[in-house]
Amino acid sequence: MSKPRLNIGLIGSGFMGKTHVFGFASAPRVFDLPYEPVLHTVADASDEMASRAAAALGFANATSDWRRMIEDPTIDVIDITAPNALHKEMALAAIAAGKHVYCEKPLAPLASDARDMADAAEAAGIRTQVGFNYLCNPMIALARDMIEAGELGEIRGYRGLHAEDYMADAKGPWTFRHDPAGGGALADIGSHALATAEYLLGPIVEVMGDCVTLIDRRPDDKGGMRAVAVDDVGRAFLRFENGAQGSIEGNWIATGRKMQHDFEVYGTKGALSFSQERFNELHFYSTADRTGHRGFRRIEAAPDHPPYGSFCVAPGHQLGFNDLKAIEVAGYLRAIAGEIPEPFNFRKGLGIQTLVETIQKSSSQRQWLGVPR
Amino acid sequence: MSKPRLNIGLIGSGFMGKTHVFGFASAPRVFDLPYEPVLHTVADASDEMASRAAAALGFANATSDWRRMIEDPTIDVIDITAPNALHKEMALAAIAAGKHVYCEKPLAPLASDARDMADAAEAAGIRTQVGFNYLCNPMIALARDMIEAGELGEIRGYRGLHAEDYMADAKGPWTFRHDPAGGGALADIGSHALATAEYLLGPIVEVMGDCVTLIDRRPDDKGGMRAVAVDDVGRAFLRFENGAQGSIEGNWIATGRKMQHDFEVYGTKGALSFSQERFNELHFYSTADRTGHRGFRRIEAAPDHPPYGSFCVAPGHQLGFNDLKAIEVAGYLRAIAGEIPEPFNFRKGLGIQTLVETIQKSSSQRQWLGVPR
Amino acid sequence: MSKPRLNIGLIGSGFMGKTHVFGFASAPRVFDLPYEPVLHTVADASDEMASRAAAALGFANATSDWRRMIEDPTIDVIDITAPNALHKEMALAAIAAGKHVYCEKPLAPLASDARDMADAAEAAGIRTQVGFNYLCNPMIALARDMIEAGELGEIRGYRGLHAEDYMADAKGPWTFRHDPAGGGALADIGSHALATAEYLLGPIVEVMGDCVTLIDRRPDDKGGMRAVAVDDVGRAFLRFENGAQGSIEGNWIATGRKMQHDFEVYGTKGALSFSQERFNELHFYSTADRTGHRGFRRIEAAPDHPPYGSFCVAPGHQLGFNDLKAIEVAGYLRAIAGEIPEPFNFRKGLGIQTLVETIQKSSSQRQWLGVPR
Amino acid sequence: MSKPRLNIGLIGSGFMGKTHVFGFASAPRVFDLPYEPVLHTVADASDEMASRAAAALGFANATSDWRRMIEDPTIDVIDITAPNALHKEMALAAIAAGKHVYCEKPLAPLASDARDMADAAEAAGIRTQVGFNYLCNPMIALARDMIEAGELGEIRGYRGLHAEDYMADAKGPWTFRHDPAGGGALADIGSHALATAEYLLGPIVEVMGDCVTLIDRRPDDKGGMRAVAVDDVGRAFLRFENGAQGSIEGNWIATGRKMQHDFEVYGTKGALSFSQERFNELHFYSTADRTGHRGFRRIEAAPDHPPYGSFCVAPGHQLGFNDLKAIEVAGYLRAIAGEIPEPFNFRKGLGIQTLVETIQKSSSQRQWLGVPR
Repeated sequence: MSKPRLNIGLIGSGFMGKTHVFGFASAPRVFDLPYEPVLHTVADASDEMASRAAAALGFANATSDWRRMIEDPTIDVIDITAPNALHKEMALAAIAAGKHVYCEKPLAPLASDARDMADAAEAAGIRTQVGFNYLCNPMIALARDMIEAGELGEIRGYRGLHAEDYMADAKGPWTFRHDPAGGGALADIGSHALATAEYLLGPIVEVMGDCVTLIDRRPDDKGGMRAVAVDDVGRAFLRFENGAQGSIEGNWIATGRKMQHDFEVYGTKGALSFSQERFNELHFYSTADRTGHRGFRRIEAAPDHPPYGSFCVAPGHQLGFNDLKAIEVAGYLRAIAGEIPEPFNFRKGLGIQTLVETIQKSSSQRQWLGVPR
Repeated sequence: MSKPRLNIGLIGSGFMGKTHVFGFASAPRVFDLPYEPVLHTVADASDEMASRAAAALGFANATSDWRRMIEDPTIDVIDITAPNALHKEMALAAIAAGKHVYCEKPLAPLASDARDMADAAEAAGIRTQVGFNYLCNPMIALARDMIEAGELGEIRGYRGLHAEDYMADAKGPWTFRHDPAGGGALADIGSHALATAEYLLGPIVEVMGDCVTLIDRRPDDKGGMRAVAVDDVGRAFLRFENGAQGSIEGNWIATGRKMQHDFEVYGTKGALSFSQERFNELHFYSTADRTGHRGFRRIEAAPDHPPYGSFCVAPGHQLGFNDLKAIEVAGYLRAIAGEIPEPFNFRKGLGIQTLVETIQKSSSQRQWLGVPR
Repeated sequence: MSKPRLNIGLIGSGFMGKTHVFGFASAPRVFDLPYEPVLHTVADASDEMASRAAAALGFANATSDWRRMIEDPTIDVIDITAPNALHKEMALAAIAAGKHVYCEKPLAPLASDARDMADAAEAAGIRTQVGFNYLCNPMIALARDMIEAGELGEIRGYRGLHAEDYMADAKGPWTFRHDPAGGGALADIGSHALATAEYLLGPIVEVMGDCVTLIDRRPDDKGGMRAVAVDDVGRAFLRFENGAQGSIEGNWIATGRKMQHDFEVYGTKGALSFSQERFNELHFYSTADRTGHRGFRRIEAAPDHPPYGSFCVAPGHQLGFNDLKAIEVAGYLRAIAGEIPEPFNFRKGLGIQTLVETIQKSSSQRQWLGVPR
Repeated sequence: MSKPRLNIGLIGSGFMGKTHVFGFASAPRVFDLPYEPVLHTVADASDEMASRAAAALGFANATSDWRRMIEDPTIDVIDITAPNALHKEMALAAIAAGKHVYCEKPLAPLASDARDMADAAEAAGIRTQVGFNYLCNPMIALARDMIEAGELGEIRGYRGLHAEDYMADAKGPWTFRHDPAGGGALADIGSHALATAEYLLGPIVEVMGDCVTLIDRRPDDKGGMRAVAVDDVGRAFLRFENGAQGSIEGNWIATGRKMQHDFEVYGTKGALSFSQERFNELHFYSTADRTGHRGFRRIEAAPDHPPYGSFCVAPGHQLGFNDLKAIEVAGYLRAIAGEIPEPFNFRKGLGIQTLVETIQKSSSQRQWLGVPR
């Protein structure tokens, strides 16, 4: 291929790092993109870990020194999938070095940090992206298109959820996710519910939060117990700028649930219902259907719903989670080339972080709060 | 049949009145009950309406004077399906006359009225029942049994909903339901969500309410518009006495939804998921299932789930809404005979009304409130 | 009520007998019918059984002599829920006595017997009914209406099923159902699949059968084993008079299935999908829907689908199995009064029996056969 | 990476060719494989098409002469995604040149051709693979493991289906798929249903076919109509070697269906139900579950179901269609290295083709036929 190369420097090679690599590997096969991304260097905690990651993931180089990688003039994009607490330092360094920065969510533990990052990125004029991959689903794009086209009429209400059970076992060990900087259920996955809500309906302007800790102590690695400082369930009542109202919940102790990123949105003329458990479907109810023949219609993902057709030319074949990441990567490469606006940049990531913090603050103050913008 | 007769005096012959009659007609065929209920007299607003109702529903007598019917010494039970605002006067009169009283929900527009009714009934020693028929579903009983048997472990959380769309059309006329005494979505159907929540998990002790009016004016019958004083959506954060937490929502503008009385409850060992849209099913997840083989299990109603077997000897045949009313009637007749405690008496009806009012008050005060008991 | 009384004489008081009684009890409450059915006499195998049934079910009289009951001039309708092998003798006697006859399915073990019964009934001019109650579902009526109105375009194909697991346990005892006269899975429940197929698409004209016995011996009541002479699974390829083609299966060893009476029918413009497991829903796909917005639409039973509204004035409340029987009873009473044609008379019952036998013969001859009419 | 390279020569760059490329691109990122596959050369009908395909898909070289590509000694694997009618000539040439051969399904239009191909491959000792990718689904592997482990007890029956609607429009043009060599619905997608059936239950030994053409003429490209020589629906009754019986259907005019590759299999102790429409789920019913608590359990794909965990470390994230192809590619590369047996080689492809032909012959002869092996 004669396309310009875009050298990627990845920090971190865990679950999300691997997922990013999948995205970089498949996106250029699936889409006609402005760049050929190259897996240039991977940085990890030790030389050995980095070398192993490079071999497994297909990077040409490995390093245990992410700062040196950032200084490497041949690298174009720094991709951060390290623990949340390190995002800010890494991102600011990369921005200072003039790199484009791709950062896993959440952008930073504190909104104030996220703001510094967004400000720096904008000042430097580089392109940023935060990994809210569920938004890359063609059926979510369809939902937004339908809402914007008025197919639901005036939007009245919203009910959002992101529930899993990966923290349901009280014997599960204390981890960085149980530290305030880790965030808790609301920050970790409730943030997805918030991102989807705003993606579909626009800004949330006022919230009443309810963040609850059910498992308040977890085993540490020294045989003792350590206090959990974050919420297991974080929920909120919502007011949207467009006049709609609703609620969301983030929950990581929802026994039996693995990917209950669900929503229902209803307007004066119709409604949509969605579950990430079956994310190649969108259910649509229209009052325009004939009386006696109305019902929620199960729309299956198809080439009618771009960019599904770039993956499969036939309907019903279905995208997988990693395909969503390929869509995310493709959008980012196009944004770097200036073809499209940044799909979900640091400024938007800051918006989600601000919402999370406002809900947490509302919960601890036990009162409604406006969302600062 | 040689069973003692129990003469029923029904006030009101609308939808719920008819449903009660279905219950009285079918309960004694389905169950072996202590009484043979007799459709003795129906009272309605005019002689003509009452006569027509008597003919249609099979009552021996008709009257436009419910007070006289209450005085009739041959009548044993007064069954009230008149508008909510009249419940108190009718019930107190019936109690004073020594009748057993069966009253449709809500017991009364105000908790203070409901309290008077409950107090009077207990003082008089008569048997009461409030019509929370969704609780009569064998699958709901199964859910409670499973929770009580510890199959879900310690209960941590609850998410309840009762959403319909019968008020979604803003052109729909102003009715008594839009008056504060009518109650609004929370009182009208959110009360069902609350009743199910407490039926399964026990008392709710603290709430934070969010009651919202989306359609604030509706056409009156004089060609003008009249202000709507009640909520279209009423939701609440909940704290249960047993330590669990959760939320409910009542919503009568949920476009596309006809009977979304749903819940999900999760504990340390398992979870249950239910939708009234498919109320002959209960979905159960157990961590005791083998790794890799776990999942929500769709349990279909069967003779294993009493009293399903009294209706059908084979599984999967399914009960209908009116069958739930027959179960409700059967429970009430058994309670009158002293065979079982009252399944859902005025005191419990007061409890729901108190919850509704506390949530409404919490919403208008924008603060958490304890639930007075 | 001043309606003319219609005295019912019931033979048999098992599951189906009880279900018929539920139908007679509730139909006149639900519908405005031309007669008031009266539970006059029940006949069972012994005086004691009959008396007990009379008390439990609400009959005024009891007898162990069904022939005397048939002779009773005050009885108008003979309702036969006795074992299949006795249907013919009983029905012919009742017809000879000038009674209307209501007979549970299958009409008779042999089509030749069923033919005698249909011929006798027509010669006598009395009204008959066979109990194919699944056809009484408002959603099945909706399906037929939609097909007849051309909403699916020209019908091309059909896939029908009735699978349960009540005979899946090989240790289950030998019963009359395992005798050729009992019929086997195809006759017992496959007949429902055939009835639904013809109800929706019209006559089946050619079949290729495949009837299989998997459990060929079952314990008898003497400690030995007895050969099973009937099929556990009976399936067929079908050709319809209207040019459509398809298949059905009857299966009583389908482990896990309790009421899988399902079908899918597709035409040039649309398709319908249905499952009795959720029989208050019909799923409709239309190519007339907008591209990218198409999908199977879950239509929930509502007052728009008569006679649902006679049971519940609000959508989504749902009918139960016994309600279907009430609809069946109502149709029969109207047919007796001459208001409507007989919904499913002996002639139609003969049609199903002929189909079953032709499929069985086709299976044993291992060749396609035309369906004699 | 220091892994040995495996040079791929692809013939054809349509839908399936692109899908294969996705598989070659992602498999080595997802799995630790014995080879690094290299997209060496793509052959297409013209130089221009080949060059365009090379640029779009990432091949280093392009050619319009597939025979020369086969002669290229640097190429290790010939991957055939050209029209079915060319498979044999291409495969035999590649085998003669000592290449491993990967061929899209169906292996060849005629079983006799497929036999020549399988024989040649075995004689040459090269490794072959046919692309039955639905079998690569971890949930299908789980199903087979559960069956083999006896969790369903002795298997009694099977119901399989593969229905889509891509040929439902009678105005759709005549294509090579409507030629006998193209195969029809049974060969095109019914073959998937057969492959899944044999994968799960073992060999099918006898069949009774029913192949039907509903749309017998289609527009040709000269403004006229051309006769369709193949079936729109092909179904069969089945007998398995293990004593089970069942049926399958292939259908390409099933209006509304996009990917209804479904099955239900039941045994003496349990049952499985699956739909490709939601292929990250497997539904399992076990009679070992407690009475009253039984039901089909929705098992969601998770790391417990290899090789799901190679794609996502967390449950519920879901694989997509292209991920199945990556699994297929990985299996083939491992088979080439001798690590595992060929997952689905030409001999197995011949088996499916033989089944298809036997069903077609059975249909035209209107009689049961044994399946030659």
